[in-house]
Amino acid sequence: MSVKPTVLKLGGSVITNKEKPLTPNMPAIERLTREILRANVSPLVLVHGGGSFGHPVAEQYGIRAGYKDSSQIMGFSKTHQAMTKLNKLIVDSLINHNIPAVEVQPSSCVVTKAGRIQSMEEKPLKKMLEIGFVPILYGDAVLDSETGFAILSGDQLVSSLAIRLDAYRIIVGVDVNGLYTADPKTDPSARLIQHITLEELKNLEHKIEGSKVTDVTGGMFGKMRELTPAVEHGIQAIIVNATKPNRVYKALKGEKVVGTIIEKGETIE
Amino acid sequence: MSVKPTVLKLGGSVITNKEKPLTPNMPAIERLTREILRANVSPLVLVHGGGSFGHPVAEQYGIRAGYKDSSQIMGFSKTHQAMTKLNKLIVDSLINHNIPAVEVQPSSCVVTKAGRIQSMEEKPLKKMLEIGFVPILYGDAVLDSETGFAILSGDQLVSSLAIRLDAYRIIVGVDVNGLYTADPKTDPSARLIQHITLEELKNLEHKIEGSKVTDVTGGMFGKMRELTPAVEHGIQAIIVNATKPNRVYKALKGEKVVGTIIEKGETIE
Repeated sequence: MSVKPTVLKLGGSVITNKEKPLTPNMPAIERLTREILRANVSPLVLVHGGGSFGHPVAEQYGIRAGYKDSSQIMGFSKTHQAMTKLNKLIVDSLINHNIPAVEVQPSSCVVTKAGRIQSMEEKPLKKMLEIGFVPILYGDAVLDSETGFAILSGDQLVSSLAIRLDAYRIIVGVDVNGLYTADPKTDPSARLIQHITLEELKNLEHKIEGSKVTDVTGGMFGKMRELTPAVEHGIQAIIVNATKPNRVYKALKGEKVVGTIIEKGETIE
Repeated sequence: MSVKPTVLKLGGSVITNKEKPLTPNMPAIERLTREILRANVSPLVLVHGGGSFGHPVAEQYGIRAGYKDSSQIMGFSKTHQAMTKLNKLIVDSLINHNIPAVEVQPSSCVVTKAGRIQSMEEKPLKKMLEIGFVPILYGDAVLDSETGFAILSGDQLVSSLAIRLDAYRIIVGVDVNGLYTADPKTDPSARLIQHITLEELKNLEHKIEGSKVTDVTGGMFGKMRELTPAVEHGIQAIIVNATKPNRVYKALKGEKVVGTIIEKGETIE
């Protein structure tokens, strides 16, 4: 690749109805497909979360805790299968709009160690980007060298991919406007942080409340922590509200948009 | 793995209606699922062909010939997506019967060179077998280091997997009873060969007609040739008619069954 790829993450709460098991948010998927098509950014890697597809099954069988007994085996199969179903809806939508999307299955090419990526086969992925495909990955149930299996969150994957592919930028689409000084869903005094450095983030860490929504991969707080390695690597990340039309489009185009930019930078406000 | 895995191949002509694009043969898929469940062989790896899912799209866009121009890009995406849809039906059927099936996507872990497997990430696959999962792979559109992309046939994959996993046995389920002295569909004098060594196969080679059905990955003749490396490696292969009830079951159980056994052995009839 001569040009650095953009890594776009679409959160599970954006593309699914998180309250109803196995329910995609098709209008949101279709709208985001059109935003991606219009922005026409290349190379592009898309990573999506599990929302109501992956999480309820993973929780039911305690997949995140690793392999404890054989009753979980079917749970792993079902979690992974649910994720591939959600992925299929997204890839179908992209292909229908003439975007050359190709599913890349984390469980087929990643092994974790105690839940952290230990090895990742990158050759097919890099070759896809060279030719002009848009690889689509996702949070997945994966094999783990220490615990048997684990849940690899889309957020950990985004950060790792960005570093491995020497990405230009990370765009994280969630269901809030960005990072707030408090939980905007419960605290009316919460203020959107438009720009933050890693050092400022560290200072804020104790003030930020985790998302209250049940999520085996963590809420906004976990997301921020997962992005840190990529940002430390010099890759800019921006968090935008993907439930609001055109926010993802503007972020892809590099236009000014409501959201939180996270940068390594040394500046202190 | 302490026990050597069995590698089962189910041909595209068995699990799909080859004459109708994108049409699965659900009764056959359900019956074969029950045969696999009853046989209860572990460890087991399943590889399936594309039939009317993969082949028509792959042919339409000339995917097998490699990357020539950008009009093929969408064809690759569509070929791969069609294969994942067929795979989903098979994995769903297995999971519904409490078989812990997990899709392993060749395009995510294999790169070919001029159509032959150049590298394959085996770690997730081996870990799955250790824990007790049944990995399900398939013929797929894959990235190629020389030609951009290529079609990796299920048959090439079976042979390569069998060697890499040091398999106990290969069972190939097709829509004929085995290898004949001539094409049984056109020549009434054709006789089923019940047992053949690699040397005998070589001698017969010029007499065997390829399958007449359109198949971008080759017919029975290509199948035999693809199995040769695994058989040379000392792995026994048996070809059975998977459209006939209980043939796959008997082969899995190691019972006597109508079919063709291919062995390295030095015996000449």
